[in-house]
Amino acid sequence: MNTPLPREGAVASGAFLYPVRVYYEDTDAAGLVYYANYFKFVERARTEMLRRLGFGQERLRAESGLVFLVRRSTADFLLPARLDDDLVVVSRLAGLGAATLDLDQEVRRGETALVRLAFQIAAVGPSGRPQRLPPPLRAALLSLNEATKMVTAHAR
Amino acid sequence: MNTPLPREGAVASGAFLYPVRVYYEDTDAAGLVYYANYFKFVERARTEMLRRLGFGQERLRAESGLVFLVRRSTADFLLPARLDDDLVVVSRLAGLGAATLDLDQEVRRGETALVRLAFQIAAVGPSGRPQRLPPPLRAALLSLNEATKMVTAHAR
Amino acid sequence: MNTPLPREGAVASGAFLYPVRVYYEDTDAAGLVYYANYFKFVERARTEMLRRLGFGQERLRAESGLVFLVRRSTADFLLPARLDDDLVVVSRLAGLGAATLDLDQEVRRGETALVRLAFQIAAVGPSGRPQRLPPPLRAALLSLNEATKMVTAHAR
Amino acid sequence: MNTPLPREGAVASGAFLYPVRVYYEDTDAAGLVYYANYFKFVERARTEMLRRLGFGQERLRAESGLVFLVRRSTADFLLPARLDDDLVVVSRLAGLGAATLDLDQEVRRGETALVRLAFQIAAVGPSGRPQRLPPPLRAALLSLNEATKMVTAHAR
Repeated sequence: MNTPLPREGAVASGAFLYPVRVYYEDTDAAGLVYYANYFKFVERARTEMLRRLGFGQERLRAESGLVFLVRRSTADFLLPARLDDDLVVVSRLAGLGAATLDLDQEVRRGETALVRLAFQIAAVGPSGRPQRLPPPLRAALLSLNEATKMVTAHAR
Repeated sequence: MNTPLPREGAVASGAFLYPVRVYYEDTDAAGLVYYANYFKFVERARTEMLRRLGFGQERLRAESGLVFLVRRSTADFLLPARLDDDLVVVSRLAGLGAATLDLDQEVRRGETALVRLAFQIAAVGPSGRPQRLPPPLRAALLSLNEATKMVTAHAR
Repeated sequence: MNTPLPREGAVASGAFLYPVRVYYEDTDAAGLVYYANYFKFVERARTEMLRRLGFGQERLRAESGLVFLVRRSTADFLLPARLDDDLVVVSRLAGLGAATLDLDQEVRRGETALVRLAFQIAAVGPSGRPQRLPPPLRAALLSLNEATKMVTAHAR
Repeated sequence: MNTPLPREGAVASGAFLYPVRVYYEDTDAAGLVYYANYFKFVERARTEMLRRLGFGQERLRAESGLVFLVRRSTADFLLPARLDDDLVVVSRLAGLGAATLDLDQEVRRGETALVRLAFQIAAVGPSGRPQRLPPPLRAALLSLNEATKMVTAHAR
């Protein structure tokens, strides 16, 4: 992370890295980032990760009626972020079902993890029923995953 | 305002009064209400005013395809609101065109005006073109206005 | 829940009930409540529950330097809420440590659970270190809990 | 604007240009950007403009106790922005007093102006009283202004 991340994020170290600057709108009277706003930061990162893989959410919806819904979230708030902080959201694929997606996301300041989140995400069709992920999207997600594994292997 | 306002607001003194409590989500690291959030407070008040007059926005959209869009806003930020403040949004009709609506709104803490706002609002149809306000809605808005004038006259 | 809830919520059925109306600001382009906003709704409910028990957060901070921080959250998003929905947040004490608090919260539309959330909350002092909950606050929280147990016993 | 803007914005054509991508969090059930959120977009742009001129708001507050408050805003909402739109906020200095600052800001999609805003901003000290702008900040703001004038002159 020595070169600045482009605003649309980048694939690096086998994960998707997305930069977030903390503005006044993100903070609260305690002087910290308001806890619900981390869920906005990571949703921006998920959106850019999909776009980077070639699957803009607007196009997915228009072409195959597919929408992503968060089914379950867990979040561990380890340390607070503050006004003007330059954060990075690190996103990794943790699981892939026929119509579901598990993602681990971490909000970091430098090398320090501030918030760790895990998401179960469902792909649903226009009727709200589960819809299988399109094969090209599956392949793109798995290629990100493979990159992750290789890098992890290298690191040992 | 000696009795507490119901959460959906009330017509009183010829205006529509709507209560807002300030929560952490509304504040920022300066310890004050973040300026953009006053625009949320007054939009809630406009929604409840219309509902009180018998015109829920969901029903208006479903029945006549009518949607309200803010065309112009001005806001004077006189004094800041803070965490835990119990505010009131006072809304008054300032003008009524065929397909437009002018509203004056004030965010108050007790008798003190904190923010004064003025809005030009357009009624548009499904195509995005201006759409005449339904006559019953016009009548309801004017009756609120008449109540205002009478009270103003009394006050002199 | 036959009589409307006051806007500051109420203790009933051994839990704390807090009403939330869904406005445009809460929704997104999918036509549903944006997922991060449920975390705002339940934080409002926690704030009003503490105020109802006699412990406004501003007073707690001023008198004993005590602030509450969410350490962990889990959320199951079962069904979506929509514009104009009239929701209720049901909050129950699930655990009480020396300087921590476990809360179960549910966002409901009528009798239907839409989102189920669980929170681990820490009481911290001005230095950011854990701070024991003041005995009167403990007693007030436990009394809410006792009310819950009694009602649960009655229901059997 | 043929090369992509860096995420922290850039001075170009005598103005400060700051890019904003529209995410789900910014939209509402009407499928458009919620009107209050444009005020967030332009505040991000003001923050980055000041940082670019060498005056991060955190540093200004720490070193001279100076905080910027919006005193007055006007906004003309010409056309709506939508999910996934790639917007640019164009900011220009419109006036400079001893302790005040006038800014014109425009939210654009490509060459199309969507929202035009004007702000009167006050510099206040720790007591909340007006505080003169530090001379180096004045000089930096005026240099931006001079750049604007030159470019305007060239364009004629």
